[in-house]
Amino acid sequence: MAAATTSKAILPPHNHPTATTTATKNGFSISIRAYHNSTIESHPGQQPSNKGIKLAESLSNMLHLHIERNLNHRTSNVPRIEDKHNTPTMSPKENISKKWQEIHGSNDWNNLLDPLHPWLRREIVKYGEFAQATYDAFDFDSFSEYCGSCRYNRQKLFEKLGLTKSGYKVTKYVYAMSQIDLPQWLERSRLADTWSKDSNWMGFVAVSDDQETQRIGRRDIVVSWRGTVAPSEWYDNMQNKLESIGQGEAKVEHGFLSIYTSKSESTRYNKSSASEQVMREVKKLVNYYKGRGEEVSLTITGHSLGGALALLNAYEAAKNFSGLRISVISFAAPRVGNIAFRDELYQMGIKTLRVTIKQDVVPRMPGIVFNESLQKFDDITGTLEWVYTHVGVELKLDIRSSIYLKKRLNLVGIHMLETYLHLVDGYLDSTTTFRSDAKRDVVLVNKDCDMLVDELKIPPNWYQLENKGLERNFHGRWVKPTRDPEDIPSPTVESYSNVLEMQGSYGIETLFNI
Amino acid sequence: MAAATTSKAILPPHNHPTATTTATKNGFSISIRAYHNSTIESHPGQQPSNKGIKLAESLSNMLHLHIERNLNHRTSNVPRIEDKHNTPTMSPKENISKKWQEIHGSNDWNNLLDPLHPWLRREIVKYGEFAQATYDAFDFDSFSEYCGSCRYNRQKLFEKLGLTKSGYKVTKYVYAMSQIDLPQWLERSRLADTWSKDSNWMGFVAVSDDQETQRIGRRDIVVSWRGTVAPSEWYDNMQNKLESIGQGEAKVEHGFLSIYTSKSESTRYNKSSASEQVMREVKKLVNYYKGRGEEVSLTITGHSLGGALALLNAYEAAKNFSGLRISVISFAAPRVGNIAFRDELYQMGIKTLRVTIKQDVVPRMPGIVFNESLQKFDDITGTLEWVYTHVGVELKLDIRSSIYLKKRLNLVGIHMLETYLHLVDGYLDSTTTFRSDAKRDVVLVNKDCDMLVDELKIPPNWYQLENKGLERNFHGRWVKPTRDPEDIPSPTVESYSNVLEMQGSYGIETLFNI
Repeated sequence: MAAATTSKAILPPHNHPTATTTATKNGFSISIRAYHNSTIESHPGQQPSNKGIKLAESLSNMLHLHIERNLNHRTSNVPRIEDKHNTPTMSPKENISKKWQEIHGSNDWNNLLDPLHPWLRREIVKYGEFAQATYDAFDFDSFSEYCGSCRYNRQKLFEKLGLTKSGYKVTKYVYAMSQIDLPQWLERSRLADTWSKDSNWMGFVAVSDDQETQRIGRRDIVVSWRGTVAPSEWYDNMQNKLESIGQGEAKVEHGFLSIYTSKSESTRYNKSSASEQVMREVKKLVNYYKGRGEEVSLTITGHSLGGALALLNAYEAAKNFSGLRISVISFAAPRVGNIAFRDELYQMGIKTLRVTIKQDVVPRMPGIVFNESLQKFDDITGTLEWVYTHVGVELKLDIRSSIYLKKRLNLVGIHMLETYLHLVDGYLDSTTTFRSDAKRDVVLVNKDCDMLVDELKIPPNWYQLENKGLERNFHGRWVKPTRDPEDIPSPTVESYSNVLEMQGSYGIETLFNI
Repeated sequence: MAAATTSKAILPPHNHPTATTTATKNGFSISIRAYHNSTIESHPGQQPSNKGIKLAESLSNMLHLHIERNLNHRTSNVPRIEDKHNTPTMSPKENISKKWQEIHGSNDWNNLLDPLHPWLRREIVKYGEFAQATYDAFDFDSFSEYCGSCRYNRQKLFEKLGLTKSGYKVTKYVYAMSQIDLPQWLERSRLADTWSKDSNWMGFVAVSDDQETQRIGRRDIVVSWRGTVAPSEWYDNMQNKLESIGQGEAKVEHGFLSIYTSKSESTRYNKSSASEQVMREVKKLVNYYKGRGEEVSLTITGHSLGGALALLNAYEAAKNFSGLRISVISFAAPRVGNIAFRDELYQMGIKTLRVTIKQDVVPRMPGIVFNESLQKFDDITGTLEWVYTHVGVELKLDIRSSIYLKKRLNLVGIHMLETYLHLVDGYLDSTTTFRSDAKRDVVLVNKDCDMLVDELKIPPNWYQLENKGLERNFHGRWVKPTRDPEDIPSPTVESYSNVLEMQGSYGIETLFNI
């Protein structure tokens, strides 16, 4: 048996899937993909796989309730993915200008969610793809001096990710740091020389162009927040660390708040905090477009940790811009603050659509916590659930609705934003399965996980750079090419370029109003 | 703790290193990389990581003898790899025409190995790179309909792999099957439609061009055999399955022989066996060049399983071509046959240079076997060691000699051919460490493993396709592009093209002699 492991020795496969640790309980298999970032890998003392097995066992009790074995038969008539190759990935864009307030929650999404209104569905996917962009463009390579930054400058971001048709333009990149020690939060380069030792690229501000503005009925400013780490482990250690926000009783988890508000003069990218960067940019844009007499909205989006930051951002924006229509569309977000925090958000008119997947653990944090001694997850009602409170209206998805998805419990895959976007795209109502005329590319689901059923023959974790970015030079040596100068982060460029740009695109007369 | 696994959920890293399972024993850390091919991954019931841990523990006893802890300090003064970026990867080629017989073992490599003669060093690396090419170009993607084939046609192979300067030209691809069930031998497509259900691309025949022929003093025919699976696991189950070869007492391991000789009329690529394909091609080339009055040599190379096949191939070739100078340069090859087999090889004048790494387990197979009950490897002297016998002269390398290599026991990494080639390139003699003027690109070592010290900042397992071969089509959908027609394997083309080619390149008058 043991030799079977050795036996792969001389296989140099192109595809190295991450380890899948599997435990079977009650006849249903549960799979947890043990992700190893390079930091873990460089410390041979750690044994993440063991942890994965433990976790799988622990979760099986709780989660088998939500996945029934007999659903597997559905995968037998999965449509051939090749039949869709020559079909468009989206429907023609509707003009939603008459209905946009409702789509953004003015009526708390009454009668829009079940069944899901097709215009709303498209808008959710649109914002979700802005959040996905923060993952797709992020430099995770710890051997890169730009680890933790965006791989492209903001002018090129949407073009590189195939989002040019979104009708938005990125005006600002946002960087964040944290002054408290949060487990596995920061992606850090191993090199001595790095663009930043303290900060990570944390998202962007974008604004709708004239054509999109016309279609959606107002000038829309978007803030898209990147997630980094599932907030679950923070709750393990920091369940009680709520911190005050604002002047009243509102309190929020101190880890989220730290990322949102930390700054330090000694850093290159966080002399101002993420909060300050975003608020300054939003203020600039709001003033500019309101100054032109336009109706303006602010839509804040994010996945997981990014969804938590979106709420903090919405809270602060509402405090600063009275009368501005602010909505949050979050994916897989955990609870962030207490009841007073929620109530203040409601009072200020912030509308939050919270997209969740029934089988995803993270949106249930910190309502459930890991019980080390019992080796299982428990619902702790009456305690934390009453401290941390969810905000807004929930759109609840179910992985069982899609015939394209594996039904085994892949905790990582179920939490992935692409899985969310796939399920939104196929969602009709709470009782129906995946709609047959969904157009979004199913293949995207497997970008960074192994969620698609085998019949589709899509490799897992396929989203990867050729040779991890190494290229052969003139001498035949494999080298890491230097980044295009325009894609190298620079605090100076970050501070000034969008002003110069507005000068160019919108007329110099506005420059001095900013 | 458990949440730490979940925590990587929202990280969509580009780089997914394979799992590293680690056990610590006697203060020295042993790391076994658990490779998961896609077959394993699709069967969530398997738990390869567990196996990895077991194996690590089992091996620690045996192998700590060969790695001393205090060698780690050497990594502190590793030269900066960037300093070599603008230097050539090889020395100018020497004319070895006067010494080629000696380099190929006419004097059993006496006085050439310790210290290693620089001309011999270069020739070893040259043949090793032919063996490496069979890995680099192999399609391991089980979701590809061409899984198990070569990704390029033979005219393009060397160009694609940067081997155009080798001075050789591929004349024939070799395919193999096996009629007995060998564990994890065949790489097979999961698709219903596949280029071949039974056969794998197993290597190639090449011949030196006129310029190289002049430099090396004779026309050299090369057969390069791909390895697939470490033969270790075969010995677990098949230790006693020796099969006769030839007319005398010679016997060889029946799994190797099966791959070498199996054929079936019902297959597309193995209507003739690998043996027959190679022998026919070699015969054609020998006749052709001898017919032109040239001196001809046959050099057979291969790594691991490929090294075993090389010996079988040499045996058969010697039987068929008396007077032809035949040599074998093998890397990490296990024992193949009994004493009678070895003696016959010697009698027929076959010269074998067997390159091994002291810490590699495979060349010690089947002299050591895994003892399931004791959970450790044992040297079984007096039994199998006397049945299976090594052939030829050994060039023994040591991973401790290179400051570039990690000293922890990575069984997979130590067995990799690129690790071998790196150590050959740096080898001076049995007492000296890595030569400082070695030119070969150190980065290559990490293609498919994690052997380079962290100071070098080379990502592990970097040899990978962009997005695993998926590309965006006109509609924005991610699709697996169809192969270039010229790179699609075809039994017809395989049978005839090299004849047509010789007609073209060498003159039509020879066509009818073949």
